[in-house]
Order: sequence, then C-alpha cells, then structure tokens
Amino acid sequence: MKLGSQDLKDLAVGAAFLGTGGGGDPYIGRQMVQKCLDDGLTVELVDPDTLDDDALVIPTAMMGAPTVLVEKLPSGEEAILSLKRLEKRLGKTATHTMPIEVGGINSTIPLLVGARMGLPIVDGDGMGRAFPELQMETFGVYGVSGCPMAVSNEWGDCTLIEARSNEMMEWLSRGVAIRMGGAAYIAEYAMSGAEVKRTAVPRTLSLAIQVGRVLREAKANHQSPFEALLAFMPKTLYSFATIIYSGKIADLQRETRNGFSMGRAKIEGFGAYDGVMDIEIQNENLIARVNGKVRAIVPDLICIMDSETAEPITTEMLRYGQRVTVISVSVPEMMRTPEALSVFGPKCFGLDEPYTKIEELSA
Amino acid sequence: MKLGSQDLKDLAVGAAFLGTGGGGDPYIGRQMVQKCLDDGLTVELVDPDTLDDDALVIPTAMMGAPTVLVEKLPSGEEAILSLKRLEKRLGKTATHTMPIEVGGINSTIPLLVGARMGLPIVDGDGMGRAFPELQMETFGVYGVSGCPMAVSNEWGDCTLIEARSNEMMEWLSRGVAIRMGGAAYIAEYAMSGAEVKRTAVPRTLSLAIQVGRVLREAKANHQSPFEALLAFMPKTLYSFATIIYSGKIADLQRETRNGFSMGRAKIEGFGAYDGVMDIEIQNENLIARVNGKVRAIVPDLICIMDSETAEPITTEMLRYGQRVTVISVSVPEMMRTPEALSVFGPKCFGLDEPYTKIEELSA
Repeated sequence: MKLGSQDLKDLAVGAAFLGTGGGGDPYIGRQMVQKCLDDGLTVELVDPDTLDDDALVIPTAMMGAPTVLVEKLPSGEEAILSLKRLEKRLGKTATHTMPIEVGGINSTIPLLVGARMGLPIVDGDGMGRAFPELQMETFGVYGVSGCPMAVSNEWGDCTLIEARSNEMMEWLSRGVAIRMGGAAYIAEYAMSGAEVKRTAVPRTLSLAIQVGRVLREAKANHQSPFEALLAFMPKTLYSFATIIYSGKIADLQRETRNGFSMGRAKIEGFGAYDGVMDIEIQNENLIARVNGKVRAIVPDLICIMDSETAEPITTEMLRYGQRVTVISVSVPEMMRTPEALSVFGPKCFGLDEPYTKIEELSA
Repeated sequence: MKLGSQDLKDLAVGAAFLGTGGGGDPYIGRQMVQKCLDDGLTVELVDPDTLDDDALVIPTAMMGAPTVLVEKLPSGEEAILSLKRLEKRLGKTATHTMPIEVGGINSTIPLLVGARMGLPIVDGDGMGRAFPELQMETFGVYGVSGCPMAVSNEWGDCTLIEARSNEMMEWLSRGVAIRMGGAAYIAEYAMSGAEVKRTAVPRTLSLAIQVGRVLREAKANHQSPFEALLAFMPKTLYSFATIIYSGKIADLQRETRNGFSMGRAKIEGFGAYDGVMDIEIQNENLIARVNGKVRAIVPDLICIMDSETAEPITTEMLRYGQRVTVISVSVPEMMRTPEALSVFGPKCFGLDEPYTKIEELSA
C-alpha cells in the first residue's frame, strides 16, 4: 500500500490516539514525511504476513522526551545513520524498516527512513501503542533481542550498544540519549521476517490511518466523531473502547526528568462525570483514577481528546482549561499475557494497582 | 623488560605519585597484576622507540570515579572485552596495549590486559600523569582520534562510541560509565606504532617504577625519601621538583558528582609553612593555593604525600588529621605547549588562574 498525503494526515491523528499521550508531536513527523512525497519518493507499507521468513527488518525510531523534540527537530538523517551503522555491524543489508511503537512521531520516523532509503515499511509495531522505555516491546516479550542497537544524533555521533538484556539496553541508551541533548535516533531489534510475524503487533499503521479517517469522515458528515470511533474499534484487534470521563483540565504538572516527560493531569468532571480524574504520565498516560478509584490502567489505552474537535492531545500539548474527553481502549491479547504484563504492566511503572482489563473496570 | 613482584610494588607507589591524587587506589591494581605473575603469566614492557611503525597499539583503562572503584573491584575481563570489541570493529588484531594515564590503577590495567592476552605493554602513556577526562590525552592533542572507543562492564555489557570529537567521546562515554555503575573499562585511541612514538609521553611506566624504587631504597637506607626524590627527578623528563607545603589535613570535602570525585582539601601549615593550603580536586589535585595565592597549578603535578612514610596519598585515601607534605613537579615540555594547555590547562577545569610553570611559581 502506497501512502498519500491524506493517509499521512489520518495517520498523524490515529497515531496520536494510539500513542495515549506519548510518542511526540504527530504534526512534526507528518511534515517530514510529506516532504518526501513532495520530493517524489514513495512510502510503501507492506503487510507483515507477506514478509519472507529471511527478510531483515530493522526498526527505526526517535528516543527521548517528546518535550525536547518540539524544540529540536530532526533532519531525518539521524535515524538513517543508525540503521546503516547497524547494517554494518550485522554485515547485512536491511530489506525493510518498521516502527517500534505506533505513537506520534515514532509512527512516522520509519516512513521517512523507508522513503529516503527506498525500503518498504512493515505495517505493524512492537508496542501496539506508545511506551516510554525500549524494553517494553512485544519483540522482546516474545524473545527478540534489542541489541545490537545504534543511537545517533544530528552531529553524526553514533553509539553502538550491546547489552546483556533489553532492560540494560534501555538504561544505557537512555543515558546516551540524554547526553545527546535529550532526543536521539535509534535502530534496534533487527530481526527476521519470521520473527516479525511471530512478535509484532500487526497492522497498527494501517489501523492508525483508519482511526484518523473515521474521525475525519464523521466530522465531515456532521456526525459525532466519538460515536464513530466507538463503533469502529470493535472491528479491530483493539475490540473494546469506551468513554471513561469528560471534563476540564484543572491542573497540570510536567517536568523533563531522567530523559522522560513526567507529570500528572487533573480533570474536573462535567455533567454526569463527578469528581476529579487524575492521570499519571510517564511520556504516556499510565493510569486514570477518579477520586482514587482506578478507571483505566496500562497497558490499556488512555487517550485524552479535545471534546469539541475529537483531536487526540499529546502530553506536551495539554493546557489548563482544555475541555477533554477521555477514552480507554483494550489492547490486543498478545499484550495482556503474563509475559507481556511483566514487561509493560502496571508494576513496571511503579504502580501499586494490579492490571485490570478495561472491560472489567467498565462493567 | 619483564616486570617482577618488586617492580609492581614500586610501580604502585610511583604511579600514585605521578597520579597526583587520581587514578584510583594503586593497591588494587597491583594485586590484580601480581595474580597474573603468580599464574605464571608475563608482564613485558617495551620501549616506544622499538615499536614498528605499523604496530597496532590499543590502550586500555578504567574510567569512572576512583571512589567507586574501591567498592567495586574489576575482574580484569572487562578491559579485555573492550579491547577485543575494538579489534573486531577495526578488523585488526592488537600487537600491544598501553596506559592512557600513568596514575594509580590505570598504570596497572594495561599490565593485566597484556599479561592475560600475551601482549607486550608500551612503556609510556597519554597523560604523563592522571587527568579526569578522556580528551585530556597527548594522543588527542597531537592528532589521534579517541574513537572508535569501547566501554564495558563486569556483566559483559559493551558500548561502542563513534563521536565527532574526543570531547564528545568523553561526554557520551562518561554517561555510559555512570550508568554502568560509576566505573567501566575502556579501550580507545587505537593507533599505529608511528603515532605512539609521535604522541605518547615516553617511558612513564618505567619512570613510575623508578620513583617507587628511589623512595623505597631511601627508606631502607635510613635516608630522607623526600630528599632522594628531589634529587632523582631532575634526571628525568620531569626535571623540576620541589616541596611546596607541609602540614596537617584540617578539612576535607569530597563527593561523587557527574561521575567524578570532586572536592577540596585544606592543609594547616607546620613550622616554616604559614597559613592554610587549599587544594581543589577533580579526581586529581588541580590547584594548590596558600592564603589565596597559587603555589602550583595543573598540568604540573601536585602530589600529597604522608610526611612520615613518604607514601603518596590518593584523593579517596585523604583523612582528617593526616600529616602531609605536598610536592610539585614540572611536566614534560610536550605537555606545556599551547595545544596541550588548550586541552588540559587550567581553563579546561574552570580555573580562572593562568597556567604558570612551577619553576616560576617557586622562583
């Protein structure tokens, strides 16, 4: 599937939605890929099921605090440098690139790399959403090593990391990304086509495009975009979606700490929504509580959207006084197994509450 | 020259002296190399002038805060892993290893690597003393790139750094070393025999052994070790040596910050030494002032020694109440050029005072 300008616009919206607040500003990523289309380059998505087992897929991404990215735009060459460095290390040439996460800018960095290098992009990712840390990948949950990993910046500095575990890879590369200025560009989890088919969350890029399209078409047809979205999600792997809150942003705390955007948002309820919703953030929205009671918890999606425009709002774009609607969505079953929850369940974020499916919390 | 047990003991003392407070506890390094001798391995020093121009010399070292090293002993495999990783990257096999600095443990890590790998060790180094940062090398001053550089820890985690400059290499690798637990083991400044001859401070390992021997023999002969040392130094490249102070440690401030041991020591003068000497430390002793007036300044050596035993005292072994004698020594001319001072002169440590040779300060 070759992507056009409208697909990119829809993708930016849908990826911001699936990013659950994280993954960076989708506008920046879209502009970079649009420039590739303007230059006559091709952005081609391929279904993971069509991959040869011995394809060499090298995912590419930005790592760092999205709050930094807004002030320090990438040229696109950074991630290409990382991919090429990894090819050199492996002594092989990549046949494809793909996203490690489907949120925000990281759904577009691989499109940029693919367009510039003439590589097709696998339609899928390793998080099925956005997560703040690099070991939080279904790739790793199901046995793929993140290393060797390359980390590059806009000056051509490059670091190759070969760590004993994906957790240590995250720890070391985060230190490098911080010292590269808070945002760096990476290639990691190089794997075969067979491994992609076994470990990736499939078809999340095309899902993001569909989410964007559903919202756009509903608005164009003067229908409720929220109702359209809630009607669409059950047709996907993300089969349960519900509105968990609606209100006004009453308080925001945000800081860039240890290379992450950390914070919390308080939402004062409107109408049927009593009390105050409190959302904890580490790049992404992790847990939503109302008066202390859990309403949705990671890894299920917690998406804050503008109540009027139905635009997803990323963490760094939250503002005091915004009227928002919070939607929670179930993640695919491969992200809810004990192995998966041991890598990106609530405990991994220091949360005391156990994981409870959004279906149960909404029952 | 094959080193024996007595050489190692003398080296530990002499390297602590040349380390000017830094470089880590020499006792630990000596024990590790002694174990190699006990195992029947050979520690062979070779004179830099005998190197083939196309030899491949890969220096090895510990990086991190010496205060951490005391609590986290290396196995010796860490630096070997880094050297091997660099060989793999270069596609060539090392013919020699050598020290990057002659202070404390870093004069012994290459001996350990050399003994275990069967490589001769070049008698020389890249600092002519100890310095806290990796760009502070005569290798780099005279045109050798520190990268590619390998950084490893005791768990087999390895990071390969390819940075645009030796300063950026230091910055990125320091971040990695901090995240590896505050101490890591490195291979860097891989270079040819011709480059070693052009850029290294020559024969500093054998010098350190001689310094240790001079102090030991003076004590055995009931002579003043200080007088013996002051009489010996003019026969070397470090041609000017003088006692600049004597007194009692009256105050110590030390902390491990940003991966360095930072601090200051105050010494209350005895006898002819009026007032208070204040010594500023970043791993090494950087500047000594008496009542605000500079008495010695980096890169000249500032060595704090036990007044009774004439043992050099490294930064982390300084204690309140110790009676100490402070000696300053001129460094070789290749370390006093404008190029050299631009890399490791006073300004590089944030000191306002200009570099003034110890000969002039003592005139």
